[in-house]
Amino acid sequence: MGGSVFGNSFKITTWGESHGKAVGVVIDGVPAGLSLCEEDIQVFLDRRKPGQSKFTTARKEGDLCEILSGVFEGKTTGTPISVMVKNEDQHSKDYSAIQDIYRPGHADYGFNEKFGFRDHRGGGRSSGRETIGRVAAGAVAIKILKELGIDVITYAKAIGPVEVREDQMDLSEITENPFCLPSKSAASEAETYVETCISEKDSAGGVVECRVKGMPAGIGEPVFDKLDATLARAVMSIGAVKGVEIGDGFAASKAKGSENNDAFAMDGNRVIKKTNHAGGILGGISDGADILLRAAVKPTPSIAQPQNTVTTEGTETLIEIHGRHDPIIVPRAVVVIESMVAITLCDALFSNMSARMDHIKKIYGTDAR
Amino acid sequence: MGGSVFGNSFKITTWGESHGKAVGVVIDGVPAGLSLCEEDIQVFLDRRKPGQSKFTTARKEGDLCEILSGVFEGKTTGTPISVMVKNEDQHSKDYSAIQDIYRPGHADYGFNEKFGFRDHRGGGRSSGRETIGRVAAGAVAIKILKELGIDVITYAKAIGPVEVREDQMDLSEITENPFCLPSKSAASEAETYVETCISEKDSAGGVVECRVKGMPAGIGEPVFDKLDATLARAVMSIGAVKGVEIGDGFAASKAKGSENNDAFAMDGNRVIKKTNHAGGILGGISDGADILLRAAVKPTPSIAQPQNTVTTEGTETLIEIHGRHDPIIVPRAVVVIESMVAITLCDALFSNMSARMDHIKKIYGTDAR
Amino acid sequence: MGGSVFGNSFKITTWGESHGKAVGVVIDGVPAGLSLCEEDIQVFLDRRKPGQSKFTTARKEGDLCEILSGVFEGKTTGTPISVMVKNEDQHSKDYSAIQDIYRPGHADYGFNEKFGFRDHRGGGRSSGRETIGRVAAGAVAIKILKELGIDVITYAKAIGPVEVREDQMDLSEITENPFCLPSKSAASEAETYVETCISEKDSAGGVVECRVKGMPAGIGEPVFDKLDATLARAVMSIGAVKGVEIGDGFAASKAKGSENNDAFAMDGNRVIKKTNHAGGILGGISDGADILLRAAVKPTPSIAQPQNTVTTEGTETLIEIHGRHDPIIVPRAVVVIESMVAITLCDALFSNMSARMDHIKKIYGTDAR
Amino acid sequence: MGGSVFGNSFKITTWGESHGKAVGVVIDGVPAGLSLCEEDIQVFLDRRKPGQSKFTTARKEGDLCEILSGVFEGKTTGTPISVMVKNEDQHSKDYSAIQDIYRPGHADYGFNEKFGFRDHRGGGRSSGRETIGRVAAGAVAIKILKELGIDVITYAKAIGPVEVREDQMDLSEITENPFCLPSKSAASEAETYVETCISEKDSAGGVVECRVKGMPAGIGEPVFDKLDATLARAVMSIGAVKGVEIGDGFAASKAKGSENNDAFAMDGNRVIKKTNHAGGILGGISDGADILLRAAVKPTPSIAQPQNTVTTEGTETLIEIHGRHDPIIVPRAVVVIESMVAITLCDALFSNMSARMDHIKKIYGTDAR
Repeated sequence: MGGSVFGNSFKITTWGESHGKAVGVVIDGVPAGLSLCEEDIQVFLDRRKPGQSKFTTARKEGDLCEILSGVFEGKTTGTPISVMVKNEDQHSKDYSAIQDIYRPGHADYGFNEKFGFRDHRGGGRSSGRETIGRVAAGAVAIKILKELGIDVITYAKAIGPVEVREDQMDLSEITENPFCLPSKSAASEAETYVETCISEKDSAGGVVECRVKGMPAGIGEPVFDKLDATLARAVMSIGAVKGVEIGDGFAASKAKGSENNDAFAMDGNRVIKKTNHAGGILGGISDGADILLRAAVKPTPSIAQPQNTVTTEGTETLIEIHGRHDPIIVPRAVVVIESMVAITLCDALFSNMSARMDHIKKIYGTDAR
Repeated sequence: MGGSVFGNSFKITTWGESHGKAVGVVIDGVPAGLSLCEEDIQVFLDRRKPGQSKFTTARKEGDLCEILSGVFEGKTTGTPISVMVKNEDQHSKDYSAIQDIYRPGHADYGFNEKFGFRDHRGGGRSSGRETIGRVAAGAVAIKILKELGIDVITYAKAIGPVEVREDQMDLSEITENPFCLPSKSAASEAETYVETCISEKDSAGGVVECRVKGMPAGIGEPVFDKLDATLARAVMSIGAVKGVEIGDGFAASKAKGSENNDAFAMDGNRVIKKTNHAGGILGGISDGADILLRAAVKPTPSIAQPQNTVTTEGTETLIEIHGRHDPIIVPRAVVVIESMVAITLCDALFSNMSARMDHIKKIYGTDAR
Repeated sequence: MGGSVFGNSFKITTWGESHGKAVGVVIDGVPAGLSLCEEDIQVFLDRRKPGQSKFTTARKEGDLCEILSGVFEGKTTGTPISVMVKNEDQHSKDYSAIQDIYRPGHADYGFNEKFGFRDHRGGGRSSGRETIGRVAAGAVAIKILKELGIDVITYAKAIGPVEVREDQMDLSEITENPFCLPSKSAASEAETYVETCISEKDSAGGVVECRVKGMPAGIGEPVFDKLDATLARAVMSIGAVKGVEIGDGFAASKAKGSENNDAFAMDGNRVIKKTNHAGGILGGISDGADILLRAAVKPTPSIAQPQNTVTTEGTETLIEIHGRHDPIIVPRAVVVIESMVAITLCDALFSNMSARMDHIKKIYGTDAR
Repeated sequence: MGGSVFGNSFKITTWGESHGKAVGVVIDGVPAGLSLCEEDIQVFLDRRKPGQSKFTTARKEGDLCEILSGVFEGKTTGTPISVMVKNEDQHSKDYSAIQDIYRPGHADYGFNEKFGFRDHRGGGRSSGRETIGRVAAGAVAIKILKELGIDVITYAKAIGPVEVREDQMDLSEITENPFCLPSKSAASEAETYVETCISEKDSAGGVVECRVKGMPAGIGEPVFDKLDATLARAVMSIGAVKGVEIGDGFAASKAKGSENNDAFAMDGNRVIKKTNHAGGILGGISDGADILLRAAVKPTPSIAQPQNTVTTEGTETLIEIHGRHDPIIVPRAVVVIESMVAITLCDALFSNMSARMDHIKKIYGTDAR
């Protein structure tokens, strides 16, 4: 199957591995008539770029994107948009030591079992560099959503054990600290925690939260393509993510119905909800409230401590993974999660257009022609 | 789009609503030559049937399945298997009171916004009866997995705040209590808790855990069709599920890399892992350890307490939902989650068959012909 | 894969075999708010029903359809529409003679090679009865198209060597003869020809033509989902079809560019074409002219003459196929082809809705909300 | 939808337009372990390259391909193979004259209606250059088929009215004339015909035939994914193709059953057919005989004669299309058709792997592990 294609109506195909010539994405299904230039994409790629603080890898990746197709005179043409980023700072030598060893916490063993061998350089296709294509496509999706009045806001909700409490939340802080935390004091605690991890040759994880404002009610399909189901797949398909919650998520399992149900009310002519335990999705369909999603990001598996493992030949051995690895991937994962959410929402919105005869007639009816 | 089709190589289409004539599923992609009869499916449907204890709805649903196609002389033919269950105990009158009101915690409002109106009887398509089709397909998937030496074991890990600790786990208890809890003492505590909920006209949620034994390593795709991503979508597509975790899940976000990484070791000629924080999936590909997944199930939204809501005309009002509703859906969700996991694994296994040239040659090579 | 699912935005899944309990279809993606009842479907099923003249099989098939889901109070709800037709007149005994023999011109040998064995009764899944599901879905698609001002007209263009010349065409004749020929004189010639075939224990083929009026320009995708490509697949997926042409088709290959190109002109404010060699599709996209498609239908393979063949055990033998078989399938194929064309057009129209930002804003824009 | 993705198990995404920076393809689902280098692809691209004779456009297109991902140390890794060809000889100026005019026989009008505007340079996405991606993917598919003992042979069966009779067929001639005709005498007649077309500022079409040798029986799905249906879509999705036939095709519609049926016989232990009117496919499933397909290619629409048309503003006008256009596209279409056939066959073979329980056990059974 391959599994490098995502989406139905807004469909992306990513390609490329850590140490190949380039990585990229083909975005099929972008509507015609959207203003788009490379700079629109570059600002998103820059958010995932390494080397932005001491808490991310020191690898230098320019990651300049090139739009190869699908845009004409500054507008999307409705045909596939191909975006490519060349791989530059490759250092293949760094990886020869791990050629015949399975790194704990990595997909190495699975790749060998699945494919019979693997491109061991930097994780090959399972490298974080694969997400460049996702972020490029996400930038386009976010631009479309903005034109429809929909905003996607994403940040770190926790760094390791340091969680941002609701009363600490200050979205203006997100860009002011290296962890994308919406809280100055939490950022300070997180810094202490991650510095300890670094000093111990260890790594940290965290939780990313995504909030979508302005989503119309009525989007999502009632059964397998529930909006929360497609969001869960989208976000769980990011390498380090091990859990996804919508709204209260796991906490809802401990609540009673009377606590967890959100009461409906009127705000003028608009139906609103007084609370949002559901995270903006009921029965798989958006309810007009903010969509709220959280993803658990595991600690970076590449650590310099000695770890027990085995070789591809079946001998037990120790491995120490040196080289330039992120002690925490959360800050760079924020924009990847934001991108996957936006791609999923575009796909759901486009697919939803034929849900009602009256909408179809608005476009194709004999009156409309 | 519709969104009632799931899977690629093992593809199911469910249909039917709470108060229509019947519900069912078409399973396309079942390999030829599998022994199959209605009884194989019925035992699974019976596990999801209501009325089995005082903790599930008193509605009587015989839910007898009929195989309409795809089986000949006791063997699957490789063509679509159509399974139908007639709707019997319908009581449409019960629902007239909620025709023009949005029930809190339900998809009513979303349906109206999406489709312009809705079949309000018993939730229509968003009713739990839709899952009958999933369970019928799951029974077939589980039968296929068994032939490959793969077992799926599912149970309640928590009922409301009552969690089963690892040291309490006793799988033989699962069938001995109405909650599918693998612990006698936890079942007793759960009983007390749910009885309180019932007495308060309230409802409870819980956590379901699924464990897959015997899964070969190397299954799953490295990018969007990661095994955990497709499992997350599958399980999150069940109505009441609000969160999904793989392995340590959200707990992994608080761990350090040295704690979360699973060391590889040799067990004779076999590669094994000494721990299983990853839940059997690394980089989206199975690693040969047990696959471990947890789903958060929210409390049943239909409760008899008065709740604030609005009418479809936009008037604020109160609603009390009477009728026969499950005070807790978790025990009946267990087999639904098991089914969705099994369907997803079959799909992944079948799709994986063309991952290697040597496997392809085993089937089509000139030597094999 | 299975391959019993067709379409993306308007997606149908057919199921059932000749001698199973029933045949049917699930239609996923029908927009909400369309008036629909069983009679709407039945009139189309009656057009494909056997036993309507001496030129079709004498089998009696009542073929009464039942809508099992997706319609509420006379309107489609937007959820899957399940339609079932029970198999009645089965006569399984008729087929025991061919259990271990490969019938020439049939899929028997392919089925055995593919699946390891087959349901030999009446062709099993490759029976013409599978098309009942297509016609039921086609009836729904045609109803949607009509609401958009699009009509699909289908008829026999040739019966064996008897072709209807352009100057003979009279669409009012289509329903006046058992061959669906749009010409009284051609129908008379055809009758003579087919009677000869019958007397010789032989069978006949023909050509079906489909003409779509009122199709808006601009529908279809520029590359793999060209409108003619998806139509070709749809029509070629009908059992007896061995060729598909759009517009002038194979004749175009002999023409010069100056002859084959259609000049554009203005008709008031509307762009029109002065000729229609292209059959209403240029570069895979509708051009506003009538869509014109022809399908070659092979002669019925089941004939009573002795034919050389082999047994499943590998012994050469003779076979004579008795029983009630259509001496010509063309008249019954007309409505099947019409259905597949209509399904394909609905799918293309729905998928096209997100092709332009201005159309998307018409549905979701902040002004529209 | 976009519609630039083709296939299920072997899935390709093409991108790029005539005058963008580059064109390319991402091939997802190539099995791991296939030897592959750029030269393997280049030889196929060279067959479609223009400027090879006076009968194809004089445009110079180097069309050198670059593999950007998915190959490691000379072997495919199982991950997406991205192939890019830069656009060099672009001459955008040539096209300014047609910016506001709809060219007869082209998709210009449809593009404007669909997308609201178009990239008018060289046809944009509907340019023949889009097929570069298909041919690159086809080269990979053909390499896989060869490893399974399957050969695809493609040639011109007719150039305009000049047809190669069966008794003239000499496959060794295909590479000896500029038309890819398998007949020296037909090539000579074709030369005269096309020279006349050129001298009249006109263009020619033709018929391409494709023959697949060594295809195993039992491949293809019984209903919508019939092998002939997917082949028809694949081939009809090529810009200039207006008709597709399998085996006797339209001629079969005039034959009687006794003439059209192919008798089965034994050749030692192998089941064979004595004739091949069916073109190797019965009921949508391969029957072990050669697969035989023909495609009608229309005459090139770009001609220098004056033609009636209209402007995008709605004014009637005349157009003469100068510049470097192929007087006949057939010779260059041969390798494109061959590619689409091969891609379709790989997809069908891979999808077929899970059709039988015994095949699945060969790969995953407990014995196999």
